[in-house]
Amino acid sequence: MTIPRNEFELIESIREKAKFHPGLQLGIGDDTAIFGFSRNKNSLITCDMLLEGVHFTLDQTSAYLIGRKSLAVNISDIAAMAGTPLIAVISIALPKTRNDTFVKELYRGIFELADEFEISIAGGDTNTWDGPTVINITLVGQEHDKGSVLRSGAQSGDWIMTTGSFGNSIAGRQFTFQPRVKEAKLLHEAIGLHSMIDVSDGLSADLFHILEESKVGAILEASAISIHEDVKSNNSSKSHLEQALGDGEDFELLFTLSAKNGKKLIESPPFETKLTKIGEVTESPEALIKMPDDKIVPLLRQGWEHLS
Amino acid sequence: MTIPRNEFELIESIREKAKFHPGLQLGIGDDTAIFGFSRNKNSLITCDMLLEGVHFTLDQTSAYLIGRKSLAVNISDIAAMAGTPLIAVISIALPKTRNDTFVKELYRGIFELADEFEISIAGGDTNTWDGPTVINITLVGQEHDKGSVLRSGAQSGDWIMTTGSFGNSIAGRQFTFQPRVKEAKLLHEAIGLHSMIDVSDGLSADLFHILEESKVGAILEASAISIHEDVKSNNSSKSHLEQALGDGEDFELLFTLSAKNGKKLIESPPFETKLTKIGEVTESPEALIKMPDDKIVPLLRQGWEHLS
Repeated sequence: MTIPRNEFELIESIREKAKFHPGLQLGIGDDTAIFGFSRNKNSLITCDMLLEGVHFTLDQTSAYLIGRKSLAVNISDIAAMAGTPLIAVISIALPKTRNDTFVKELYRGIFELADEFEISIAGGDTNTWDGPTVINITLVGQEHDKGSVLRSGAQSGDWIMTTGSFGNSIAGRQFTFQPRVKEAKLLHEAIGLHSMIDVSDGLSADLFHILEESKVGAILEASAISIHEDVKSNNSSKSHLEQALGDGEDFELLFTLSAKNGKKLIESPPFETKLTKIGEVTESPEALIKMPDDKIVPLLRQGWEHLS
Repeated sequence: MTIPRNEFELIESIREKAKFHPGLQLGIGDDTAIFGFSRNKNSLITCDMLLEGVHFTLDQTSAYLIGRKSLAVNISDIAAMAGTPLIAVISIALPKTRNDTFVKELYRGIFELADEFEISIAGGDTNTWDGPTVINITLVGQEHDKGSVLRSGAQSGDWIMTTGSFGNSIAGRQFTFQPRVKEAKLLHEAIGLHSMIDVSDGLSADLFHILEESKVGAILEASAISIHEDVKSNNSSKSHLEQALGDGEDFELLFTLSAKNGKKLIESPPFETKLTKIGEVTESPEALIKMPDDKIVPLLRQGWEHLS
């Protein structure tokens, strides 16, 4: 694990502002970092690699937002388990042509979000090369007191619910989204969840992940799905519903819980973030969607099947 | 954290052979992995990113050895703390032109070494793109019962010692080296170490890391340094000693311990891997080297100062 000293001088002013988790016992500067959290809980680990030209382009997105997103996607994965993010290590490959401002802004995006979620940066590995920009962050967190919420826990009769709204995140939200850590923890604490995932592949595709891991089916209510206003201002040839189901990178929570607890949640939501019931889990393993005209058609990963 | 299901079908035959650490409670297939080790020890974390064209070229090195090295460099960092490696997450960016055999061989290199060191692969993120091959591995381990051996613990009067031999690792050892986990643990357990680092930047450069972190100096004995036979079969314009001090990527241990314990170690080494005393730590913050002609000259990061 190596971060050149001069690079850390560059970002020293940012790091000074960073809060450090007391569980991080040795940070940047040795062969590894050392950490130890609560002895009674398990740890969570996740990693995501962002690639220039695949996940972002430099002419369309600022270095700040690229840095922010590289951490945010990992925080969202920890949120999807109802966990708490704690420490991160950052590996970066930078094109030799990038200047100090680019690097500073990239790190500012990472450190500001780390600060907001009280995540300590424990170390990393920085390189320069002739290739495009690559950022990989590995995030370690801690389980919820009640344990983690897995994809595999959905039960027949569960309500299927979401936070927030969906569709056309490419308009900007794919970089500026707020990972739902607080909401996930409050939901699991106050109510108890059966299964959960964060929506990265798309509302429909990620529902399929839950259904497959839980070996159940579902019926969605098309008119109930919360469509983001970004969709409404969009000139896409796809319908609003198709965009909400298929676009992805909304980084909202998609979860299931007992019908009884679902009703409780709607009656007294524990936070202001929008909560919507979008369907129910069924014992039959099919995935279906009830369209606004009351016709029931198969749900597909990218939308639904148009029956003749 | 996402590994496409078809990729895991590809490497299923390898994975089936992999041993899984009982501390890994949930592996590949959810938003994060879940792990929990001994409650009484701290954890270690390190990451390293290998880049095509910087750390390896595909015409000179097999996919198997590239995969192996991407894990081995991380294991070596855990060894340098006298820790035990336990679980890893793997992020990969693959050129779209790479075929299944390349990917299989890359993973075989990782999984075989993971198996040897009883490391569980907890998850990862795989991508394809138009850029060169990128592999990032983050490795989590556990501290030694006696705590970790840091770079900052060297004391005046300590013996400076190494495992193995040095120089011209580019002949092949930079890919095939054996991380010194067993040796580091035995040394710390049987004897007790003051400071340690694994030699990646170079014997001299890495000694400087210990000296700077420990705020001490050193005097090396040039004739004592263990020069690898790869150096002797080399046509380099550099002297054998220069190669041993400056080449790097030997991934041997460089450590300091009390003179008393150093003598004990030489008298009854706890393993067969070569152990050599190469110098002593001094209170004066200078780094010096006594040359074969008995002249004492300043040690430099890449060798020594040729005084007129």
